[in-house]
Parts: sequence; C-alpha cells; structure tokens
Amino acid sequence: MTETAITRWAVLIEYDGTDFVGWQRQKDGVSVQTLVEAAASRIASGHPVSSITAGRTDSGVHAAGLVVHLDFPAHTNFRSHQVRDGLSFHLKPHRVVVLDAAPVSLDWSARFSATWRRYRYTIINRPSRPALMEGRAWHVKRPISIELMQEGANRMLGTHDFSSFRASACQANSPIRTLDELSIRRDGEYVLIETQARSFLHHQVRNMVGSLMMVGTKQWTPDRITQALEARDRRAAGQTAPSEGLCFLAVGYPDNPFLKKH
Amino acid sequence: MTETAITRWAVLIEYDGTDFVGWQRQKDGVSVQTLVEAAASRIASGHPVSSITAGRTDSGVHAAGLVVHLDFPAHTNFRSHQVRDGLSFHLKPHRVVVLDAAPVSLDWSARFSATWRRYRYTIINRPSRPALMEGRAWHVKRPISIELMQEGANRMLGTHDFSSFRASACQANSPIRTLDELSIRRDGEYVLIETQARSFLHHQVRNMVGSLMMVGTKQWTPDRITQALEARDRRAAGQTAPSEGLCFLAVGYPDNPFLKKH
Repeated sequence: MTETAITRWAVLIEYDGTDFVGWQRQKDGVSVQTLVEAAASRIASGHPVSSITAGRTDSGVHAAGLVVHLDFPAHTNFRSHQVRDGLSFHLKPHRVVVLDAAPVSLDWSARFSATWRRYRYTIINRPSRPALMEGRAWHVKRPISIELMQEGANRMLGTHDFSSFRASACQANSPIRTLDELSIRRDGEYVLIETQARSFLHHQVRNMVGSLMMVGTKQWTPDRITQALEARDRRAAGQTAPSEGLCFLAVGYPDNPFLKKH
Repeated sequence: MTETAITRWAVLIEYDGTDFVGWQRQKDGVSVQTLVEAAASRIASGHPVSSITAGRTDSGVHAAGLVVHLDFPAHTNFRSHQVRDGLSFHLKPHRVVVLDAAPVSLDWSARFSATWRRYRYTIINRPSRPALMEGRAWHVKRPISIELMQEGANRMLGTHDFSSFRASACQANSPIRTLDELSIRRDGEYVLIETQARSFLHHQVRNMVGSLMMVGTKQWTPDRITQALEARDRRAAGQTAPSEGLCFLAVGYPDNPFLKKH
C-alpha cells in the first residue's frame, strides 16, 4: 500500500463527553479519538485508520455535530450507511455515535477546510443542583441578568486579541480571533450561550463564559470585559467555566460533504 | 407523639429514572421513594418520615416536576429552603433533587388533591442510536408521520374505556379515563408527545404511545385506534413503549402550594 492509496471519509459525530478524557488520545483514560479510530479499524478489516478532527474537545465537553475525517485503505468500498452504521456498531456501548458519513477528496480536511465552528454553553440557573441535566450544564445559583451578560458579550464581538481568554497551553500561532456571534438567551431555568467563529483558541469559549458570568451576576460591569481584552493577560479575565456545560454544536464547510452526498 | 402530631410538606422533585426501580419501594433495587424518605428522616433527626406521591413512575421513567407530600414530626420547624436544600443534600450523589418545598395542611394530599397530571414522551427519530439522549428517548428508525399520529391521537381524546391501554397489573377501580390533551409535534429529529388528564391508568401513556407509533409508521390506520378502544382488550392495542422515553412533567392542584408560599 502506497501513501496515497487511501479513501477519505468525513463523519458527523455525537457524543456525551462525561466519560472521556476529551477528543484527543491521552496517556490515561479513554478518548473519543481512540474509540473512533478503533471502530474504523474494525470496519477496515483491522487496517489502522487515522483521524483528523474539526475540534479537539476537552475532557467532559460534549459534541452534537463534530466532523472528523478518516483515512481508510483504498481497497475498502463502503457505502455511506455502512460507514455510519458500522462505526456506530463498533462504538457500542460507549456514548458515541456516528450520525452521517460522506466520501471526500484527499485535499479535503475536516480541520483545514472548515470555515466556522459553533458551540453552545448551557447554564442551569436555579437554587437546586441539576438531576436530569447533571454533567450537561453549569449550575449557577445566583440570579443572572441576561441583558448585562449580552452587553458584556457584545464587547467581545468582532476581531480582537483574545490573549486574556486563552489557556496557557494554547498552541495557536496568533491570539487574534474574530467572533461572528455570541448570543445569550434564557429558556426557563436555562441560560444558553451560542457562539460562532472561524476558529477558537484553547479554552476560549469556557474562559469567555466565565467572565460573562461575572457580568451577569453583577460582580463585574460590562466595561471589565473591554478591560480584560485590552490587558492581554489571562489573569485579567474570569475563571474557566466548567467543561460539562460546553457542547460542540456544528462546523461549516463551503462545500458541505453531507449535503452533497444526498 | 400522637397520630396527628405531624407537619406536612409538599415537595417538587426532579429525577433521572435510569438508575432506579421506579418511585415505589421494591424488594430489589433502589427506589426514589426510599431515597426521599431516607433523606427526609435525616433532616428530621432520624424520625421515620412517610411519603405519598402524585404519581408512581415505573422503572426508568423520569420526572421533571413530580409532587410528593411528606409527614414530619410536628416539632420540626423548617423553613421552605431548609426542606428543599436539606433533602437535596442528603439525596446526593443520586440523580434526584428537590426543586421546591411548601407547608400544606393535613387535609391536603399530593395524590388526592391533584386535578391533573401531565406527561411527555420523547422519541428520537433518526437512523443512529442516541448518544446524548441515551436513556431518555425511544429510538425509532422508521420515518414517522406526525399528521397520522395526531389523527390517531385524536381518537383517544375525551372520555373512553381505556381497558385496551391498561397494564394487567393495574389496580384502578375503573378503566374509564378522560384525556384532556394528547398532542404530537416534531422538533428536529425528536418527536414529542404531551398528554394531560386528571389521572392515568397503569402503563396508559406508554401503551398509547406504542399504538400511536404503529399509526405514525403506517403499519396501522388511525381507525385501528378506534377499534382498539372499542375492543376493551389489551391484546387489541400495540406494544408498551419503552420506559426511558417517559417523563412525569407536572401535576396541578386547585390551590398550588408552591405558588401560595411566595
């Protein structure tokens, strides 16, 4: 088998991140990547299969529509539903499932072809801890002002140096990012934050949410968000919001492989 | 302590039913009732506390707003948040939590004062099994017609003999029930069924859903629902839908104790 004798598939994945160390393979614990590549190898008669993801979610972070591409040996001749159902079958009993699969060309990358990523952060805002939404939302007891939170969020929209909202371990070359959306709404006892950008820095969404919570609970004025951005210093921003509230919702491509296939 | 030396509290409860044998105490397995009464006993300095529920959910069935009343010794002098937070604390680490608590008179009953109960049944309608909603929805792969399902549902509205939709173990004196609502809607890949009545027979909601699914997937015409009702025979209706899709949403009282207290 030569280097190029591969056939590439894009797959759309959903998972509950509670039991995993995150997307990426780690020394300790189970990663989603390990499970997906192992399942892919099973349907490829044991050939090793490598993957590239549109987003490396942290431990405890969920995904409703993450896209990953998988490189199979060229001699495999799958149909779309075989990839979807075969992978899902071998991912049992883990809370990981493949929702869709589409063949893509070798110059298509789940990571580099993506033009936007979208996340949702879920907060449960009530006195009692969550039972039904345990592990799926950040529990905040204090009253939250959605209006103030949105005012703070608006300071982050557009192009900024997000150094203050970046994990120290972040490996991106530039701290400059462009936020296309950062919207906050209340739905009963839930506060839902959705955000979209071409790409995000490591921990950026959780760090933004942590600071916005300071504004929403009136511990900070919205001006503190502007000041935090200008400081370009992680210590100027608020805490990192817990991982369990975060969900990778969707990723966009100029030429969506899942739409094309139908 | 005399028989009447008690003080009665209504509590609003949320739980994930996955790990439980249901509300009611059983010989084997953990019941929500056992946990709630044990937590109540803890905040009552070890005195035994008994409970009456508005609805005895089956194993695997969830609750978003079940109401239960608890009889504490009269010498306890709780404030509302102490009951709510004390019970929730002692219910850890189980996925059961108390959302609200209100004192009620001794002639008030969570069960007998209730004038309506409301349930939601959640179906996930897509090829892939659920990962995020595992244990919380019935997975149906076949395409479902909401319009046909609603047509079948309309046959059940109003007052009928529901013998065909009643578990053989049902202990109710009469099989006659009045359905005030049975509405079906689609939300993306979910099909949501909500129903309300003064009371339901044992397994009635799950049995209705099982038959409606036969209609929604075009294996039955809506007329079969009318025929099933008229047969007054469990064998004339469809399968019992799985427990994990069912959630006890809410229960109504003419004089809502949780509203009164504020």
